[in-house]
Amino acid sequence: MERKTPGTGEKIELKFAEPRGFCFGVRRAISTLEESIARYGKVYALGSPIHNSQEINRLCNLGLEIVEDPGDIPLKAAVFIRAHGVSGEVIDQLAAKGSRIIDGTCPFVRKAQEKAAFLSREGYTVLILGDKDHPEVQAIREFAGGSVRVVDPADVDLPFGPGLSRVGIVSQTTQRKETLSLLVSNVTRVTDEVRVFNTICGATSARQDSVERLAGSVDGIIIIGGKNSANTAQLVEISEKTGTSTIWIENDGDLESRWFRGKRTIGIAAGASTPDWLIHKLENRLASAKSVREDGWEDD
Amino acid sequence: MERKTPGTGEKIELKFAEPRGFCFGVRRAISTLEESIARYGKVYALGSPIHNSQEINRLCNLGLEIVEDPGDIPLKAAVFIRAHGVSGEVIDQLAAKGSRIIDGTCPFVRKAQEKAAFLSREGYTVLILGDKDHPEVQAIREFAGGSVRVVDPADVDLPFGPGLSRVGIVSQTTQRKETLSLLVSNVTRVTDEVRVFNTICGATSARQDSVERLAGSVDGIIIIGGKNSANTAQLVEISEKTGTSTIWIENDGDLESRWFRGKRTIGIAAGASTPDWLIHKLENRLASAKSVREDGWEDD
Repeated sequence: MERKTPGTGEKIELKFAEPRGFCFGVRRAISTLEESIARYGKVYALGSPIHNSQEINRLCNLGLEIVEDPGDIPLKAAVFIRAHGVSGEVIDQLAAKGSRIIDGTCPFVRKAQEKAAFLSREGYTVLILGDKDHPEVQAIREFAGGSVRVVDPADVDLPFGPGLSRVGIVSQTTQRKETLSLLVSNVTRVTDEVRVFNTICGATSARQDSVERLAGSVDGIIIIGGKNSANTAQLVEISEKTGTSTIWIENDGDLESRWFRGKRTIGIAAGASTPDWLIHKLENRLASAKSVREDGWEDD
Repeated sequence: MERKTPGTGEKIELKFAEPRGFCFGVRRAISTLEESIARYGKVYALGSPIHNSQEINRLCNLGLEIVEDPGDIPLKAAVFIRAHGVSGEVIDQLAAKGSRIIDGTCPFVRKAQEKAAFLSREGYTVLILGDKDHPEVQAIREFAGGSVRVVDPADVDLPFGPGLSRVGIVSQTTQRKETLSLLVSNVTRVTDEVRVFNTICGATSARQDSVERLAGSVDGIIIIGGKNSANTAQLVEISEKTGTSTIWIENDGDLESRWFRGKRTIGIAAGASTPDWLIHKLENRLASAKSVREDGWEDD
């Protein structure tokens, strides 16, 4: 059945990719951070603890201070390690200045760090699938030490080897299973031994798969999440690849009514660090939109 | 430039896939066998030591006797283990009857056996890529023991898991790199850890790649090798997939002049257990063919 062009007075229908809202790792990190602020009054964070400016503003009002360099943290302060994790070297630096370390490292990220270190100790050449500029990948890389190389998702088709004999592979937790699979496949052809730890977060995969499925049944998809959030960027890429009209917003104020022109069913997906309240705000705004008009929506 | 249709009087041009003739493992096994026959006069082999009936006839005339069951071997006899290898259990049976064991197991097959046993000891679910009815695969399987499954090349696309967590993978030495790569790729998607030993024989891969390349520059390909030879079957499959007219012969007597009709350039490839003298015989026969005629070749 063909979907008819929406007429005046028709309501916008919303469909959601699941899971939405904070992932386990972010929820755990934020609640740990909130508890620490309540306890110590002031907590320093090394790098922004979450890729969402509104959530950061809320936390800064409570007592959070974000610094980029461990040198900027006073002695014996409470220091929060965000979900992305940091290198062992940074932990040593903090310990040396008597910091109270509040570790918000996501357990899945921790696993990737540990597996990378293990593979390196076992003498494998370690490949990390991920974005080399992302703090999570930088920390995993430092854990691996030794013979390590970050492989960008765009480069998994590059010819590898010869000269590679024992290769260990881990992944940034937010990468796509398909990309890891392709990398492993290419490396297998040219090496004697490949050992892979699939360190992709299962919930992240589920969210990605859900966006891909959703794209087939809606007129457009809104992805809500920070512009520097790796997992949100993946959702946008997946949605765009399906050919479905896609917009990436950081909050509901970024919406333009014109984008809704001719769209009746809208899919909504959110990155793992997009707070629930922001998703609800967007949902309420769209639900209360009076109707879709020829030139976009019409607010109540 | 278009290849012109051959006219009367044109010679057949031959091109060869490389390497041809016995592979390292077969050459080593056969020379070990010949030495043993010279030394002991009579040598029993468990299963046919090579997939080539003419070579077998030659060896039987020297003093070889082929049996299928260890029970058929007399006490204290000299017993040859072919390149495919046998299980540890068979070795124990032979040792118990005081056999002199002459081990012709190909070192690459030995490696696959050892890696399968290692993966099993380390607690991996072991997948063996290969033909479950092939003696090489049966021996590898017995070495792995425990939780093991043979995956047919046709089944590498099957959905695997869930329920697989740590998977170890080895391959029959004659499989294609591309097939192993595909299996590994599919398993990576559904497991936490994959450990792969690429036990495919490098020379076998080179022979396969050579057939694939050759197919593009000839009018037809002759594959010469035993009908129950796994590596020869792979060459035939690769050649047929290219769309090039392909015939599989066991010796030059199987050739039909009609197949040559319209073909001027012929590719020749041989399995790893095809003796050199057989390839030369074919080569001489074709080289001495007077010309290609409208209805096939014309012998001198």
